[in-house]
Amino acid sequence: MFRTKTCGELRIADIHNEVTLAGWVQTVRKFGSITFVDLRDRYGITQLLFSEALNDQLDANPLGREFVLQITGKVSERSNKNKNIPTGDIEILVDRFSILNKSITPPFTIQDETDGGDDLRMKYRFLDLRRNAVKKNLELRYAINRATRNYLHEQGFMDIETPFLIKSTPEGARDFVVPSRMNPGEFYALPQSPQTFKQLLMVSGYDRYYQIVKCFRDEDLRADRQPEFTQIDCEMAFVEQEDILNTFEGLVKHIFKAVKGIDYTEAVTRMSWEDAMWQYGNDKPDIRFGMQLLNIKAPAHVYVQKERNEALVAGAGFGVFDDAETVLAIAAPRCSEYTRKQTDELTEWVKRPQIGMKGLVFIKCNADGSFKSSVDKFYSEDRLKAIAEAAGAKPGDLILILAGAEERTRKAMSELRLEMGKRLGMRKDDEYRLLWVLDFPLFEYDEEGNRWVARHHPFTSPKPSDIDTMIGNNPKIENAATYLSHPYANIKANAYDMVLNGNEIGGGSIRIYQKELQQKMFEALGMDEQEQQHKFGFLLGAFEYGAPPHGGIAFGLDRVCAILGGSESIRDFIAFPKNNSGRDIMLDAPATIDDKQLDELQIKIDLK
Amino acid sequence: MFRTKTCGELRIADIHNEVTLAGWVQTVRKFGSITFVDLRDRYGITQLLFSEALNDQLDANPLGREFVLQITGKVSERSNKNKNIPTGDIEILVDRFSILNKSITPPFTIQDETDGGDDLRMKYRFLDLRRNAVKKNLELRYAINRATRNYLHEQGFMDIETPFLIKSTPEGARDFVVPSRMNPGEFYALPQSPQTFKQLLMVSGYDRYYQIVKCFRDEDLRADRQPEFTQIDCEMAFVEQEDILNTFEGLVKHIFKAVKGIDYTEAVTRMSWEDAMWQYGNDKPDIRFGMQLLNIKAPAHVYVQKERNEALVAGAGFGVFDDAETVLAIAAPRCSEYTRKQTDELTEWVKRPQIGMKGLVFIKCNADGSFKSSVDKFYSEDRLKAIAEAAGAKPGDLILILAGAEERTRKAMSELRLEMGKRLGMRKDDEYRLLWVLDFPLFEYDEEGNRWVARHHPFTSPKPSDIDTMIGNNPKIENAATYLSHPYANIKANAYDMVLNGNEIGGGSIRIYQKELQQKMFEALGMDEQEQQHKFGFLLGAFEYGAPPHGGIAFGLDRVCAILGGSESIRDFIAFPKNNSGRDIMLDAPATIDDKQLDELQIKIDLK
Repeated sequence: MFRTKTCGELRIADIHNEVTLAGWVQTVRKFGSITFVDLRDRYGITQLLFSEALNDQLDANPLGREFVLQITGKVSERSNKNKNIPTGDIEILVDRFSILNKSITPPFTIQDETDGGDDLRMKYRFLDLRRNAVKKNLELRYAINRATRNYLHEQGFMDIETPFLIKSTPEGARDFVVPSRMNPGEFYALPQSPQTFKQLLMVSGYDRYYQIVKCFRDEDLRADRQPEFTQIDCEMAFVEQEDILNTFEGLVKHIFKAVKGIDYTEAVTRMSWEDAMWQYGNDKPDIRFGMQLLNIKAPAHVYVQKERNEALVAGAGFGVFDDAETVLAIAAPRCSEYTRKQTDELTEWVKRPQIGMKGLVFIKCNADGSFKSSVDKFYSEDRLKAIAEAAGAKPGDLILILAGAEERTRKAMSELRLEMGKRLGMRKDDEYRLLWVLDFPLFEYDEEGNRWVARHHPFTSPKPSDIDTMIGNNPKIENAATYLSHPYANIKANAYDMVLNGNEIGGGSIRIYQKELQQKMFEALGMDEQEQQHKFGFLLGAFEYGAPPHGGIAFGLDRVCAILGGSESIRDFIAFPKNNSGRDIMLDAPATIDDKQLDELQIKIDLK
Repeated sequence: MFRTKTCGELRIADIHNEVTLAGWVQTVRKFGSITFVDLRDRYGITQLLFSEALNDQLDANPLGREFVLQITGKVSERSNKNKNIPTGDIEILVDRFSILNKSITPPFTIQDETDGGDDLRMKYRFLDLRRNAVKKNLELRYAINRATRNYLHEQGFMDIETPFLIKSTPEGARDFVVPSRMNPGEFYALPQSPQTFKQLLMVSGYDRYYQIVKCFRDEDLRADRQPEFTQIDCEMAFVEQEDILNTFEGLVKHIFKAVKGIDYTEAVTRMSWEDAMWQYGNDKPDIRFGMQLLNIKAPAHVYVQKERNEALVAGAGFGVFDDAETVLAIAAPRCSEYTRKQTDELTEWVKRPQIGMKGLVFIKCNADGSFKSSVDKFYSEDRLKAIAEAAGAKPGDLILILAGAEERTRKAMSELRLEMGKRLGMRKDDEYRLLWVLDFPLFEYDEEGNRWVARHHPFTSPKPSDIDTMIGNNPKIENAATYLSHPYANIKANAYDMVLNGNEIGGGSIRIYQKELQQKMFEALGMDEQEQQHKFGFLLGAFEYGAPPHGGIAFGLDRVCAILGGSESIRDFIAFPKNNSGRDIMLDAPATIDDKQLDELQIKIDLK
């Protein structure tokens, strides 16, 4: 060993002991004839003191930032203690030292707040990884990984590895493919998830499977997407939805406790997809705060079970509301005294292209019980009061109203709600609120193809009460204009998403396990029998040999880490991430390959 | 939940309790009006008793093998107890039942000894996985996985994920490549190991890294190779070889204890590569037994430090020995009374094409101290006695001698030694003998290219005492005939293999961490500066910024499982293995992909 102790462990109890440390030079400071060095390793920082006697050697072997240094010396009590670090009570009186390796000047500072830009830090990722901020992220990731394994082990789950070189079955996202040299003209695909394998393991009787596993999707990347990402992938047999919800809220609570010390004792909130859409305008609401949406006007076809409040705004001659497909309101607490400048700024905010609305209507609920709105011309005080009451607004609140086409307006209002929640301090960093969203629609309508697509994936089962509807009806949509009246439009899925502070962190479903129902599902998605056999013949085959009822869930580990680490970006929690073009800047990958390799694979590049 | 108990947990203490079980029908037996069913799940088998009262229902819903069945009933004491299974004291008096899913007749029996051939079992892997024998293998694998993680965690190692979409740097084995849609004409490669990443993590200060990770090699497959395989991949900084050996023999001992209950308390044997080759004829000797090789004649250039015993056979006029490059002997204990038939059979054995020798010479060391050999014509009793003494043969032993070209003869003798060890019961299934093989040559001579190749990989460091030799000499081989006198031929590597019962289960090295030495290594392997930069620029770059001394090891998890599971084939320990053509027969992968996919990737198939 090059050391007897680490740079993080020496304390006042160690004084007078001789130790050998090895690590990186964080700083070198000279005070008169004495040199102080902060030596850093994975475990911490320890101050070294080089006395005058070593000056000749230091002159001959000058130390620089990020040099790898080995020293031997005596632990000594510091006169000016540093209360900010655990080793701050001591320093090492260096007896001898050896430079194990030198460093040229790093392109950015190795500090919590670095001066390096994103690209530079990606290129020199091996230096960025030295920064304490990044190290803490990877330590958090490992802690979550370990807590997950321990919990699932206790619950009887078995880690079983599934293959990476599988078959391409393009559904939804694009596959990455791998040309096979031994089978020329044929390709493997990298798994988008081990979905069918974990289902086969249930058919095989393994009962409780899990894996922390890399998955791959060849999608155009957004800031928070990576072509390779990690899933906590789980499946259980002989269970119903309730069992899965209980098991996996247990997992998340265990992780909270293990890595954040949080006792999340309360029950996890459950909400139907319909309620989420109706009350929050999206399917992954942040329920750390209220400010729910009031649906003042909604198209008849949307969320039909819910009461519409159309009377509140209809027939007042205000064209914007009268002509709009949807009118939505939220009540921002204690904002009635917003100035013109503030309301104008909010109006500009919703007009930005990302939000895309034409304007914002305000109703101030004054502290004295009176109302003041930007549409006073059209609405009497009584009508304003009725809106305020319906929106749950109190005196002192500010009602914000958006109107327009259904989907865009709902999305915009959801964004506006989150923005107001943030501005008003209602989305607290240290508050964690879990939510199950349930009862998703099984199908979504694909306008382009005038057909049904699976909202989740083709293996998700319908609610038991909807199975007859699914089996008994022809999935064909005769008339695009009336697709909503097709019986399939109302089939609900046995599916569930787990949402944490407005982020979907996991999702799953009870699966189809009957061959006939699975075939009907494939048929509904437009696959003929030949295609079904080619793509999923093995699964349909497996369902003939005694498939048990089963279901599962997958969590996005990268995202779980990011949220618990208090960051927006999953990239900060991946040791070697790729940029938005799917490039590893450090490696300079992807890259061209040798002609010999192409030749052996019997493929050609064919640039358009 | 579809059950209140599993099929493996009910005992005599549970009688009179009502339970609900779910599982698969293993067998159905009718005795008069009573039906017995063995119900199987992951945890075991429980006997069910259907009384006459259920016969109408059974007639309406007949049960078959592998049906998925849910039953509710009372636990009852069995009259004829089955001592072979843990639940053998009880049975369930079925009150009601429900068929959760049916099964058509499986293509082979779901039993320890199945009637299914390899191909059939691969095609219906989901059924093969139901067999207890296969399940035990996957359970062993999970236990090894978990023991590994627990030990490494205790030792301060951190699990850090490295990327799967990296850069192709063909050295040694072929890469699998992945065309990039976002970067047309460019390819990612799948990692053959996370080698450079774990070294970068050491440069980043992570100090103790591990990962249980899939790796990929596009090689022509042998029976015990898979295109994707799993490594226990580890790296440590600020360590020397001794630290790594101690840490990882600790790991293997911990695994022995955790999964086999074996206390492996003795020190792990250490042997130089040269001794292994000299005494056992190969670099992964099975040291459960002796029967070492006696080198009666060896070419002058081989293992020069070792004493040659040429005088024992030279100059007796026996052309086979006189002309042979190498003559090797082993003494098989207690075999002097082998019959002519037996010695002939052994001779045939070495003549098989896999071994490829021309013949086998015998010396019987008779119990009375006399000798009888197939070469009596050429060798006096005294010379035979001298050979016997040198070979450590005792009265009653049989000396086997092979002669021929160095490499083939050594290989053949190594095989013959293993075969004799097996026949004589000296390779016991329940005995585990660990061995470190050390001090490998750093380079191997590549005849075809008349150049040096890395025996291990290009990141392995030479012994400190050999660094000057390496730096100070031109790697160029002027004359192929005398390559052995090149100074590089004698450079030893800081490398180590762990061998278990004659199988290499892990290997690693202390790495190069100095840029200049790494460049010299690349140069020695024939890479010019441009190629070095293109392939490994990121690593050379990293070595400029303070790389610490480091080293590591990787274990082949599939093989560790196979050996501890007592099997020859790693395939039995992989949930979804591929066949020898790299095909997943169950999925039918690889397969053709859509033209649209090729189009988007901007590649074309170009079959020869």
